[in-house]
Amino acid sequence: MATPANNPHLPFGDQRSAPWYGKDILSVRQFNREDLEYVFAVAHEMRTMVERVGTFDLLKGKILANLFYEPSTRTSSSFVSAMERLGGSVIQINEVRYSSVAKGESLPDTVRTLECYADVIVIRHPEVGSAATAAQYAHKPVINAGDGIGEHPTQALLDLFTVKQELGRIDGLTVTMLGDLKFGRTVHSLARLLSLFKVRLNYVAPEALRMPSGLIGELSAQGLDQSESTRLEDVLPQTDVLYVTRVQKERFESEAAYEAVRGSYVITPDLLKKAKEEMIVMHPLPRVGEIAMEVDQDPRAAYFRQMEYGLYTRMALLAMVLGKA
Amino acid sequence: MATPANNPHLPFGDQRSAPWYGKDILSVRQFNREDLEYVFAVAHEMRTMVERVGTFDLLKGKILANLFYEPSTRTSSSFVSAMERLGGSVIQINEVRYSSVAKGESLPDTVRTLECYADVIVIRHPEVGSAATAAQYAHKPVINAGDGIGEHPTQALLDLFTVKQELGRIDGLTVTMLGDLKFGRTVHSLARLLSLFKVRLNYVAPEALRMPSGLIGELSAQGLDQSESTRLEDVLPQTDVLYVTRVQKERFESEAAYEAVRGSYVITPDLLKKAKEEMIVMHPLPRVGEIAMEVDQDPRAAYFRQMEYGLYTRMALLAMVLGKA
Amino acid sequence: MATPANNPHLPFGDQRSAPWYGKDILSVRQFNREDLEYVFAVAHEMRTMVERVGTFDLLKGKILANLFYEPSTRTSSSFVSAMERLGGSVIQINEVRYSSVAKGESLPDTVRTLECYADVIVIRHPEVGSAATAAQYAHKPVINAGDGIGEHPTQALLDLFTVKQELGRIDGLTVTMLGDLKFGRTVHSLARLLSLFKVRLNYVAPEALRMPSGLIGELSAQGLDQSESTRLEDVLPQTDVLYVTRVQKERFESEAAYEAVRGSYVITPDLLKKAKEEMIVMHPLPRVGEIAMEVDQDPRAAYFRQMEYGLYTRMALLAMVLGKA
Repeated sequence: MATPANNPHLPFGDQRSAPWYGKDILSVRQFNREDLEYVFAVAHEMRTMVERVGTFDLLKGKILANLFYEPSTRTSSSFVSAMERLGGSVIQINEVRYSSVAKGESLPDTVRTLECYADVIVIRHPEVGSAATAAQYAHKPVINAGDGIGEHPTQALLDLFTVKQELGRIDGLTVTMLGDLKFGRTVHSLARLLSLFKVRLNYVAPEALRMPSGLIGELSAQGLDQSESTRLEDVLPQTDVLYVTRVQKERFESEAAYEAVRGSYVITPDLLKKAKEEMIVMHPLPRVGEIAMEVDQDPRAAYFRQMEYGLYTRMALLAMVLGKA
Repeated sequence: MATPANNPHLPFGDQRSAPWYGKDILSVRQFNREDLEYVFAVAHEMRTMVERVGTFDLLKGKILANLFYEPSTRTSSSFVSAMERLGGSVIQINEVRYSSVAKGESLPDTVRTLECYADVIVIRHPEVGSAATAAQYAHKPVINAGDGIGEHPTQALLDLFTVKQELGRIDGLTVTMLGDLKFGRTVHSLARLLSLFKVRLNYVAPEALRMPSGLIGELSAQGLDQSESTRLEDVLPQTDVLYVTRVQKERFESEAAYEAVRGSYVITPDLLKKAKEEMIVMHPLPRVGEIAMEVDQDPRAAYFRQMEYGLYTRMALLAMVLGKA
Repeated sequence: MATPANNPHLPFGDQRSAPWYGKDILSVRQFNREDLEYVFAVAHEMRTMVERVGTFDLLKGKILANLFYEPSTRTSSSFVSAMERLGGSVIQINEVRYSSVAKGESLPDTVRTLECYADVIVIRHPEVGSAATAAQYAHKPVINAGDGIGEHPTQALLDLFTVKQELGRIDGLTVTMLGDLKFGRTVHSLARLLSLFKVRLNYVAPEALRMPSGLIGELSAQGLDQSESTRLEDVLPQTDVLYVTRVQKERFESEAAYEAVRGSYVITPDLLKKAKEEMIVMHPLPRVGEIAMEVDQDPRAAYFRQMEYGLYTRMALLAMVLGKA
């Protein structure tokens, strides 16, 4: 982690007093409700600026090291665009498998090398805890862009920002999560963030992919109103936010078991007739059949706008940890 | 396709009235003679500016998504340079095989994601029609950088711009195309563009790689003066533009069949003694033996300058579709 | 090589009279002592500027083609950062194996293409002499970023700059090189540069990996004070600069032979108790066990600062060959 005190290379003019200056973004657990409101306010400013001028020079002269140990075009491109829309530059490191790492270099050494070249490090890594390890050794701020089945905090933040921007509020909403709720780190992180608000959470999943009972217990202890179901129809009419995730064939014991449940988790225009007029359908993407393409025309389909909110959210986080928000 | 009307994110200050604003560049068939003159005028301005100041901020703040589903260092680097010389930024996506696409994402979804991050999309894809599909779903302009055996319109445009810049005119010229005229999308597109001018076209190819008769018929119907031959010597003395292409071994039934014709299609200093003093030799590159390296010193060797004209042409197209030309 | 005379595309405003303008950086043999002082002076200025403002627009509008035929995250990222901290842009070419080269294109053709797009070319290539070949054909300056077992001049320059910055002088120092001195191009190049100063050089290596006698003879003829040893303990107390390199298992005849010497070449806090209080430990990185991680806390551990000096050195070289230093 970088703080003004331990960062030997603090460029002149940075706002050392900014609340998120030099901080790492590692987990959704770092954020309380007030923090979230702050992120949303900055992200909303970013949206306004992008719509008005496209790009502006808030981070001119700053360099992002975008370190991807596993491929993720979407997340990687989103951070590149966020940095470029803020006038900054990027060092892209995709080919980690061919690099020093392949020669046996440790993550701490890689990170300490990159921070000589960059002002902020975004890291995607297949192992849980890797972003925290990187942050422990780096003097520059580190942003976790997904550490295996661990966390992907910027995804959860952009998901919540999407809800806020699309529906104008979070308190009082009914959110239904659909699909693979057992392995989906996305829904776990989002559920944790939602527990800071007064919402009702419905979990709809096949038996083998139910929300982990440990997490349900944790959120219940915080007073979150939750319910489980295997049929989307039961809860769809009351749903304000339908959060769809991929149900991967590999999670099932047999092809037959997969095919048996598959159809129940595909969103179609027909199904959406049972939904409210003012609600949104979200998906972290990529989708592979969970939402029919015909749904794309429906104004309630928010998943492509969600990508755009992701851009604004990541712009906000970069500006915050670099002391410019 | 993006038009001012359907583009919800039109940044302030763009010239909505510019004739190519928001248009896609998918095929040479989009261009009439007047359009070509316009492209050449803008490309010539780009040349002047690059020679005078190297780089300038015409597209400052604009972002190009450079989406390459198959590798092409030359074309990809050319677009990156074009964008950077105009002061813009690039999101490079090379590793498509490792990305969301590998997880099964459709081209429309990939394109709709990228347009959240970028202002213009350049796409190279192995399948015919893929650029048109991308353009159909994108709200931002799409430029086709090669779709399999389909089209590669920016190559044809830069080829023609090279002729114009090198010889000062196009009308009245004799253009000889040499090599693989059957599978070469480059020569097909160029021939189509040339048919808008008063030129004479000679095709010199081995029997197995002759210009498709369908295309010859199409161009003939437009009044283009064409002739076929298997011997370059027959037409070289009258040639103003010799357009050389690669003859790939794999196109032949046997190694012997390949070796039999190979030598007839190699350009040497000796051969060029039979050519005019004022003519040019072109090649889309990469070459693999079709032109001897000794020819490089000959002032008539235009193939490296052709790369440079490619830069100016792509700068022109980017500026045009972004409403800045 | 590019000179003002043969460069047809000299942008307005470049300082043609700058001493390194348009030159290639291919070998440490190009540098005499005065040249080194000049590089260090410029690199020191770069350090001052980076610490004060982070990034500045000395090379705004200039484009670097970063051409890596083999992966090297560290060196590649260092050049990208150097160019971006100077306000320039980068065309990154990593995937050479998938590119035109895979289609059989020659290095000269690749280089002549890239120089149409860029203002300076950095090349990393597995074959000795490849950077010189590139420079022979290019009209723009070429910087060698490692050509197989040949040279890696920017590494040697940054190593020497590290010594100068850390210890304030080079004359009068005792430098001990440790590890694989037979195959390490890094130590060979550094030894050549050190021979321009009044230093004492100790070589500590296992029998099979001794400094080549040819090189020792060459440097001896220049009056350099050298000595060989197999035990670090013998020379450590007098050492001002301990330059550690990797001892690779593959260099040994057997696993046993490797394990027998391995321990003697690992730097630990305990071992450093025998070293001076004011000395530095260097390593070109990546390390794989040659220096214990506990050493990182020791103020004498200079290897991460060395990466940073690398950034300043490469910024200096880029500015020099582009006529801006």
